Amino acid sequence: MIKHLSIDVPGQGLHEITDRIQAAVHEAGIKEGLCTLFVQHTSASLLIQENADPAVRRDLEHWFNRLVPENDPLYTHQNEGPDDMPGHIKSALTATHLSIPVAGGRLALGTWQGIYLWEHRRSRGARRIVVHLGA
Amino acid sequence: MIKHLSIDVPGQGLHEITDRIQAAVHEAGIKEGLCTLFVQHTSASLLIQENADPAVRRDLEHWFNRLVPENDPLYTHQNEGPDDMPGHIKSALTATHLSIPVAGGRLALGTWQGIYLWEHRRSRGARRIVVHLGA
Amino acid sequence: MIKHLSIDVPGQGLHEITDRIQAAVHEAGIKEGLCTLFVQHTSASLLIQENADPAVRRDLEHWFNRLVPENDPLYTHQNEGPDDMPGHIKSALTATHLSIPVAGGRLALGTWQGIYLWEHRRSRGARRIVVHLGA
Repeated sequence: MIKHLSIDVPGQGLHEITDRIQAAVHEAGIKEGLCTLFVQHTSASLLIQENADPAVRRDLEHWFNRLVPENDPLYTHQNEGPDDMPGHIKSALTATHLSIPVAGGRLALGTWQGIYLWEHRRSRGARRIVVHLGA
Repeated sequence: MIKHLSIDVPGQGLHEITDRIQAAVHEAGIKEGLCTLFVQHTSASLLIQENADPAVRRDLEHWFNRLVPENDPLYTHQNEGPDDMPGHIKSALTATHLSIPVAGGRLALGTWQGIYLWEHRRSRGARRIVVHLGA
Repeated sequence: MIKHLSIDVPGQGLHEITDRIQAAVHEAGIKEGLCTLFVQHTSASLLIQENADPAVRRDLEHWFNRLVPENDPLYTHQNEGPDDMPGHIKSALTATHLSIPVAGGRLALGTWQGIYLWEHRRSRGARRIVVHLGA
């Protein structure tokens, strides 16, 4: 089963979507199987990360922004704005898709795991995720 | 259903394989499901990346080559050539497998997404990809 | 089919789990399909990497430890120890899940590929992996 989700993002950063994905699993009535998420963009990522201390996600974003800064003289692709090429590189360093087992009708996440859409651009907007639910 | 593909690569860099994978989906007659690609090597990766401006892919390669240079004095594994250990590290930083939903008989890629085999070695040759197509 | 594995890890580093996963595939009696591994933690990763020369894995660990050092003044999340925040970053840079095709009753790995659990924390302990086996 395929579902198409549209996620409104307020800007750059990690946005938790665990509840949205769990709701999609619930609506599909899947008890055991595999849930695969695929983001249809190349300047946003999907990430499993700690959902407890928000400082973890803040440090993670700062670390990636330092590793992949804007306005690096290496970039020749500049015409879509200073946050575009860093977004493509961060996308390559992280994940475009996630597969999470489903057991007992729920995503088999660990206690401290949340699912995040990582927006790498600075502007607000909607991002499209395709969800596949299989046995 | 499992298919084995052999991809001829002319050398280091990103080589688009979207049409090859779409053809495999078409031949399998799958209308809705999940297509998983797995590269059977540890010095090549699979990547979803922008298929529009070639400067994006060029900058991406240059950025990774700067982050993971050849002849880093840290490397002790040198006997397979200066491009081997950087290839293993780039492989760990990116993806060995990709799962892409299939809808309406086609890969559910975003408008600007292409599928690339990223060859990290400098030599030309053939790379093996295993494709799994499931409901 | 879902299986839950507990992997004892002796400490930080790459620990091969290929045999454990192959055994799970064998027990399930799957001849052709897809095997997906999901690690239920955010400071450990799953990795496909070369299983031949151990120097490759040693260099890989040293390279990641240099890229993501402990005690970076950027980190504000310090209360779980100096190895915790690097673990979360390494987890984001690598993979929380792997999907490997199964053909002829065996994982369709390349000749030199092994499956590793990458423990990013320094302490010994058990890590949970959920295995999904589908057609």
